[in-house]
Amino acid sequence: MEDWNQKFELPLRFKQEKVIRWEECIPSTINENHVDLWRGCPDYLPSHEFVTAIREVIRNGNVALHQYTKGSGHPRLLAVLAKLYSHLLHRDINPLDNILVCFDIYGLMTNVILSNVTNGDEVIIVQPSSDFYEYIVRMAGGISKFVPLRLKQNITTPSSSSDWKLDDLELEKVFNSKTKLIILSTPNYHVGKVYTIDELEKICSLCKKWNVVCVSDESEEFLAYNPEQFTRIASLPEMWQRTITIGSFDSTFFLKGWKIAWAYGPCNLLKNLETVHFNTVLTCPTPVQEAIASVFEKKYENMDKNKMVFADTINSLKLKKQLMFDTLREVGLNPVKSESGIFIIADVSSLERSINYEENNNFVEWLAKKAHVQAVPLCIFYQEEYKSNVTHLVRFCFNRKEDTLRLARDRLQECFNGH
Amino acid sequence: MEDWNQKFELPLRFKQEKVIRWEECIPSTINENHVDLWRGCPDYLPSHEFVTAIREVIRNGNVALHQYTKGSGHPRLLAVLAKLYSHLLHRDINPLDNILVCFDIYGLMTNVILSNVTNGDEVIIVQPSSDFYEYIVRMAGGISKFVPLRLKQNITTPSSSSDWKLDDLELEKVFNSKTKLIILSTPNYHVGKVYTIDELEKICSLCKKWNVVCVSDESEEFLAYNPEQFTRIASLPEMWQRTITIGSFDSTFFLKGWKIAWAYGPCNLLKNLETVHFNTVLTCPTPVQEAIASVFEKKYENMDKNKMVFADTINSLKLKKQLMFDTLREVGLNPVKSESGIFIIADVSSLERSINYEENNNFVEWLAKKAHVQAVPLCIFYQEEYKSNVTHLVRFCFNRKEDTLRLARDRLQECFNGH
Repeated sequence: MEDWNQKFELPLRFKQEKVIRWEECIPSTINENHVDLWRGCPDYLPSHEFVTAIREVIRNGNVALHQYTKGSGHPRLLAVLAKLYSHLLHRDINPLDNILVCFDIYGLMTNVILSNVTNGDEVIIVQPSSDFYEYIVRMAGGISKFVPLRLKQNITTPSSSSDWKLDDLELEKVFNSKTKLIILSTPNYHVGKVYTIDELEKICSLCKKWNVVCVSDESEEFLAYNPEQFTRIASLPEMWQRTITIGSFDSTFFLKGWKIAWAYGPCNLLKNLETVHFNTVLTCPTPVQEAIASVFEKKYENMDKNKMVFADTINSLKLKKQLMFDTLREVGLNPVKSESGIFIIADVSSLERSINYEENNNFVEWLAKKAHVQAVPLCIFYQEEYKSNVTHLVRFCFNRKEDTLRLARDRLQECFNGH
Repeated sequence: MEDWNQKFELPLRFKQEKVIRWEECIPSTINENHVDLWRGCPDYLPSHEFVTAIREVIRNGNVALHQYTKGSGHPRLLAVLAKLYSHLLHRDINPLDNILVCFDIYGLMTNVILSNVTNGDEVIIVQPSSDFYEYIVRMAGGISKFVPLRLKQNITTPSSSSDWKLDDLELEKVFNSKTKLIILSTPNYHVGKVYTIDELEKICSLCKKWNVVCVSDESEEFLAYNPEQFTRIASLPEMWQRTITIGSFDSTFFLKGWKIAWAYGPCNLLKNLETVHFNTVLTCPTPVQEAIASVFEKKYENMDKNKMVFADTINSLKLKKQLMFDTLREVGLNPVKSESGIFIIADVSSLERSINYEENNNFVEWLAKKAHVQAVPLCIFYQEEYKSNVTHLVRFCFNRKEDTLRLARDRLQECFNGH
C-alpha cells in the first residue's frame, strides 16, 4: 500500500500546510449560545424583493427557467448588468463580450487567476484579503506577493478606515516585469476602506508602467456610506483595457447563500476568462439569475441615476453600524469609523492591559469565553510578516438584526463593567 | 501594444483550437421553430416535489437557508446522501468524510481531475464522452488517452445499447504506469449503455493492476430501465478505496438549471478533492441543497428498499422512449433499444442512401433543414480517430413533452414520406 498512498497524494501545487475547511474557520471558542459577530452572513432574510422574485420564478411555470441558460450568463441578467455598468462607467458595455456570470466571487476569482497566471508569473495581493487567492495562484503555477494596507504613520489607534494606507514605496517595490495581476478589494471589506482617487491612481500608474492587469473585487461597490467617494477602477483613464472587475449583489441584497457573481472588462480579457469558464463551469443556475435580474430591473428603474444608491440597504446598514459603534465605544473599546461595508474594526489595546487572559491566547478568545460574543482578530487576514502590526485590532460584523446587536451590547457591557 | 497582447494571451495550458461556448454548441441549423431533440434538458418542469420543496424553503423564512452552509455540503443533504449510498453500497458511508457536494457535474469533475492529476499523468477517458474532460486534464498538466465504446464485431446496425463494447485489448493497451485516472460514465449517457458486471470487472482489474483511480460518473444511476442490471463500480470488490463516484439528481428530477451534484468515495481521495474544493468553490447554494434533501427524504421513506427505483421518473421516461422509438422505426430509421437514459441512437444509413444532401454536409443538417427536427451526430462525442466508425449514427433526445414528441413524429413522417 506504500505505492498506493504515494501515488494518490494531492499534487504538490495544491498542498498547503493546513487544509482550510469552512467549518474549521469557525473559531473553536464559538457555540450556538454565542452572539456571532465573526461571520459576514447576515442573520436576517434577503431583501424582500429578491424573495418575492425567486418565488415568482418558481411559481410562473416557465420551463426554460429550470434548465440550462447561456454559459456566459442568463440573457436577462446580462442585459441589466450591461445597462447598469454602461451607465456607471460612461462606456458602452456589451452583454455578450464584456460580462460573464459565475458562481460566487470564489469561483470567479479562481477562473480569473487561472485564465491569466502561468508558471513563474507574479500576482500582487493587497491585504487584508481572503487567504484562498494565494492558493489559486500557486495552483496556476504563479507566485503571490503581498502588500499590506498599513495604518498611517504615527497612528496606532485609527479613528477612520481612511487611516489605512498603502505605502507608496512598498507598493512600487512589489511590481516588476514578472507581475501579471494585482488583486484588491475596493472598498476593502475587512477594514471598510474606500480608496481615494489619488490612491487608486497610484496603483493604476504602476499597472500601466509594468503592464499589469488589475483585478478589482468591487462586490461591495454599493456599500460605501458616502457613495460619491467611491471610484470604480475601470472608470479611470486607460484602465478599462487592463481591469477585470468583479461584482455581486450578494452583499447588497443579503443573498450569500444563493451565490451569483459576475466579472466585466475588455473583450480580450473576458474571452480568456470565458474559455476557462466554459470548460470548468459551463453555466450557472438559471432561476437565481432570473430572479436577481428581475429585482435589479425594478430597482434600476426607480433609482436616481445621478446617485445610484440602494437606499434601503444603506439606510438599514447605517443604523446597525451606529448601534455597533456606540456599543463598542461605551464599553471602552476604540471603534474605527468605517467608510463602507459590514464590519467595524476596534482597537482593544486600552482595555487589553487590564485583562487577565488566564488560559486564553488573545482578546478574541477571552471575549468569546467571558462575554459569549465572537469577533475575529484582524491579523488572520494578513500574512505572517504583517500580523504584528495589527494584533490589537479586532473585527466585528454588524449586519445583524437589532435584537442581536442589542444582545451583543448587553453582554459586552456586562463583561466590561468592572474594567 | 505588441507587448501587451503577448503578455495577456491565455496561458498555454488553457489553449484550445476552438473556444467552445455553450451557445456555439447549438447547431447552426437550429431555430426556434425546430423541434429540438439535441439538448439533454427536458422541455417540462422539474418534478413537482422539487418545485414544492424549493417554494417551501423560500416561504418558511428560515434565515440560515439563505446564507452560506457548510463547505462540504449542506448537512441535511449530506445526511440523506449518506443514508442512500450506505444502503446501496452495503457500507457505512460517513456524511463528513466520504461525501462532497458541489455545483453540477462539470464543476465537480474539474476539481476531481485537478485534485488527482499533475504533470505527465495520464488520464483514460472512455468515449463517447463530454469533450471538456480533456481540457481540464491538460489544464492540470496531464495527458488524455481515449478508449472508445465500439459496436460489437460484425455489427454496424446495433439493435440494443448493449451492442456497444470496450475492446479488451484496446483497453489493456491504454493502461500503463503513468495512468492516474480512468473516467467513464456508467450508464453511458450518450448511447444509454448499462455495463455488465463482467465489463466492469475488466475495467476494475486493470485499475487494480496499474493502481489507478476510477472516476465513475453515475449521475444517471437511476435512469437504467432495468435497475437490477446496473452495478455501482464502488460496490465491486476492492474498488471502494480507488473509486470516486459522481452523482446528481439533475436527471432524475429534471433539475438541470439548479445545478447540484456530489462525489462520494474513500476518505483520502475525498480529502484531496475537498482541499481543492474549499479553495475554489468554498460552498454551494444552500436553499437548493435543502430542497433536494427534503424531496429525497420523502422519496426514500416511501421507496421499496430492495428495488430503489424512482418509479415516476422511469415510468414517464419509458413512455417517451417508446414513442420516440416507434416514430424512428416507422419512418425507416433504425433505432437502437436503449438500456438507460434520455437518448436513442438511430442508424440512418439505410435512408441516407436515398437522400440527396444538396448543400448540406450530413444527415443531421439535412434533417434540420428538411424536417425542422434537430438531432446530434454521435460522432461529436468521439475523438477524431474514432469518428469514422459512427458517422451513420444519430442521437435523438426524448425527455420531451408528449406534444413535442408527437410534433417530431408528424414532421419526420412528412419528411420521409417519399423515401
